[in-house]
Amino acid sequence: MGIGKTPFGAFPDRDLRSLAVEAGEKCLRNAHANPAQVEAVFLGNFAGPAFVGQNHLAPYVSTALGIQGVPATRIEGACASSGSAFFHAFTGVASGVYDIVLVAGVEKMTSQPTPRVTEILASAGDCSGEIKAGSTFASLFAMIARRHMYQFGTTREHLAAVAVKNHANGALNPDAHMRKAITMEQAMAGKPIAEPLNLYDCSLISDGAAAVLLAPAERAHEFTDKPVRVLGIAQASDFVALDQKPDITTFPAVRLASEKAYRMAGVRPADIQLAEVHDCFTIAEIIALEDLGFAPRGEGGPFSLAGHTARNGDKPVNTSGGLKSKGHPVGATGAAQICDLVLQMRCEAGERQVPRHALALAQNLGGSGATCVVTILGTI
Amino acid sequence: MGIGKTPFGAFPDRDLRSLAVEAGEKCLRNAHANPAQVEAVFLGNFAGPAFVGQNHLAPYVSTALGIQGVPATRIEGACASSGSAFFHAFTGVASGVYDIVLVAGVEKMTSQPTPRVTEILASAGDCSGEIKAGSTFASLFAMIARRHMYQFGTTREHLAAVAVKNHANGALNPDAHMRKAITMEQAMAGKPIAEPLNLYDCSLISDGAAAVLLAPAERAHEFTDKPVRVLGIAQASDFVALDQKPDITTFPAVRLASEKAYRMAGVRPADIQLAEVHDCFTIAEIIALEDLGFAPRGEGGPFSLAGHTARNGDKPVNTSGGLKSKGHPVGATGAAQICDLVLQMRCEAGERQVPRHALALAQNLGGSGATCVVTILGTI
Repeated sequence: MGIGKTPFGAFPDRDLRSLAVEAGEKCLRNAHANPAQVEAVFLGNFAGPAFVGQNHLAPYVSTALGIQGVPATRIEGACASSGSAFFHAFTGVASGVYDIVLVAGVEKMTSQPTPRVTEILASAGDCSGEIKAGSTFASLFAMIARRHMYQFGTTREHLAAVAVKNHANGALNPDAHMRKAITMEQAMAGKPIAEPLNLYDCSLISDGAAAVLLAPAERAHEFTDKPVRVLGIAQASDFVALDQKPDITTFPAVRLASEKAYRMAGVRPADIQLAEVHDCFTIAEIIALEDLGFAPRGEGGPFSLAGHTARNGDKPVNTSGGLKSKGHPVGATGAAQICDLVLQMRCEAGERQVPRHALALAQNLGGSGATCVVTILGTI
Repeated sequence: MGIGKTPFGAFPDRDLRSLAVEAGEKCLRNAHANPAQVEAVFLGNFAGPAFVGQNHLAPYVSTALGIQGVPATRIEGACASSGSAFFHAFTGVASGVYDIVLVAGVEKMTSQPTPRVTEILASAGDCSGEIKAGSTFASLFAMIARRHMYQFGTTREHLAAVAVKNHANGALNPDAHMRKAITMEQAMAGKPIAEPLNLYDCSLISDGAAAVLLAPAERAHEFTDKPVRVLGIAQASDFVALDQKPDITTFPAVRLASEKAYRMAGVRPADIQLAEVHDCFTIAEIIALEDLGFAPRGEGGPFSLAGHTARNGDKPVNTSGGLKSKGHPVGATGAAQICDLVLQMRCEAGERQVPRHALALAQNLGGSGATCVVTILGTI
């Protein structure tokens, strides 16, 4: 497995293709591979056509990487686009259709003004219902947070604890969009966005790309001395509209995907040593902890506040800084989660390095839970 | 294999989801299958976000079909979106990852004014180059036609012969957008669009959806008495920008995909008994005949004018009416080609029925050739 990432941030002088190509080239170099070895390309991208006016993105990127002729396919699954691309690449390799497959994810968001970005992101919701009625993703997750507070006693402090932890991690990540530690007081007093969520509860609008090269386990040694194996993976789906879900404090697609991935890997939630989860909003990380089985139902908030998910906790989560601090170039996020876990598993995570890193989990969420991909990685 | 299609046309009172759901439900009924049997959904869609403001389309459609929990993935490959969805669904079934997979394709185009449709379609070209310079797809294919005329002596009559033939076929297709036979004189005298292409050289802007259910060959009998087998299939890629191609009178991705599909099926071009090819413009059908090996290089025009590709010719092409007359709801086209071939192979094509229908080929093209999927079908 090879990995490659651009820094995440606002890069007014970079276009979508140059970001994707940078990540892809770094990934090929990391794996000592050349473009002619790649047998298929899966590109995760959410909204290139809306953000930068370019569609038909897979061959647009793959040919610029010098990859010619092979199937080059764009996968769109909202914020889970490159997690889904990784899932389909994995099934292709595991089933023997391909040997060497490049997965890339990219999004170039900052060229649009923030209100337009919010509008584009909202197209991952149900535009004939909730979005038409004026919802944005911040307001949808605000409703989710309110309900979680009402039902389980989750507090503003619990949300803020997630933000403080992820900012602390991101401050140590040279590729993070926002390298700034914040205090509990700051996190509590952020500018209101959609009550009860404030500025520090929301992930960033970022440009960036990430790429991963997959090979069959028996050929891994050709590409790396530190192979990482996909032990379990699953993609699941659910209703797009929040109002169609019987309970908005849990995401059935996350539960389903993680159950399948755990079963495939033969491991339990307690076995996972570190995770990257989809903290598009702080409440999403709290619910992910519960849906993934790291914390009991309704206790994700206290679990976070107690420090279990900190770098020095027993279940480090989002040591990269997460979407909150590392940044969230939507289509790149799923692939970037894999890259960040691989860095930890290879002991290449620098100041963020955690001591236990043999079994890791990535959870990539699309919209308000209509798509979820869960991947479990192990060192071989 | 089950199939289902909506009629193609301009349907101001229908939204994208209702079209996709109609095709999906017809397909499940056609296969005597229920939603709970479906193990994965691949949805081909080119530009739902731009045409109707809705992204994250795969779970948006699959949940409305009553399909819950399973991987639901949108594939975008310009005009080859649902051909590519079919390719990935096939590899999933053939490799044993899934048994029962639903492929659907959908596009809702007519809600936008024509200039905006042209602009959205242009996002399948290179927006940092050719499109920025003012190209549309009509002008790109006009350049291709000019060059083909210059290099091989192709004439306006050759182009018009394709239009006359496809309109004659479409007139017999109850699901076609434009059921109107035209004369050679009409085809020659159409309103200029981008010289040498006139109105009758250009495919239609349509709404529509199509769906196909795939199952392993050994389980086909559960779903149909008239099974059709995928004998060969391949997806290939090439440069997006026309100016990057060394020769614009042939599409390397078509040649590569068809060579791989022929090899996989163990058949030669001469063996193919009927085909649906991607006639987004009449010149595209002429070049497809050459790239697929039906006619020698440069002779696709005379081959068409001589009637070989007519319903009563020795190589019937686009008996459905093709994109020209049946209509071209971009994301639905690849899946619809498969449906139309299956109708012929089951002797259910009504007035369009051809006598030889045991071995058929579909060719689905994205943009000006950056993506191509070729599928070869055989009756079992």
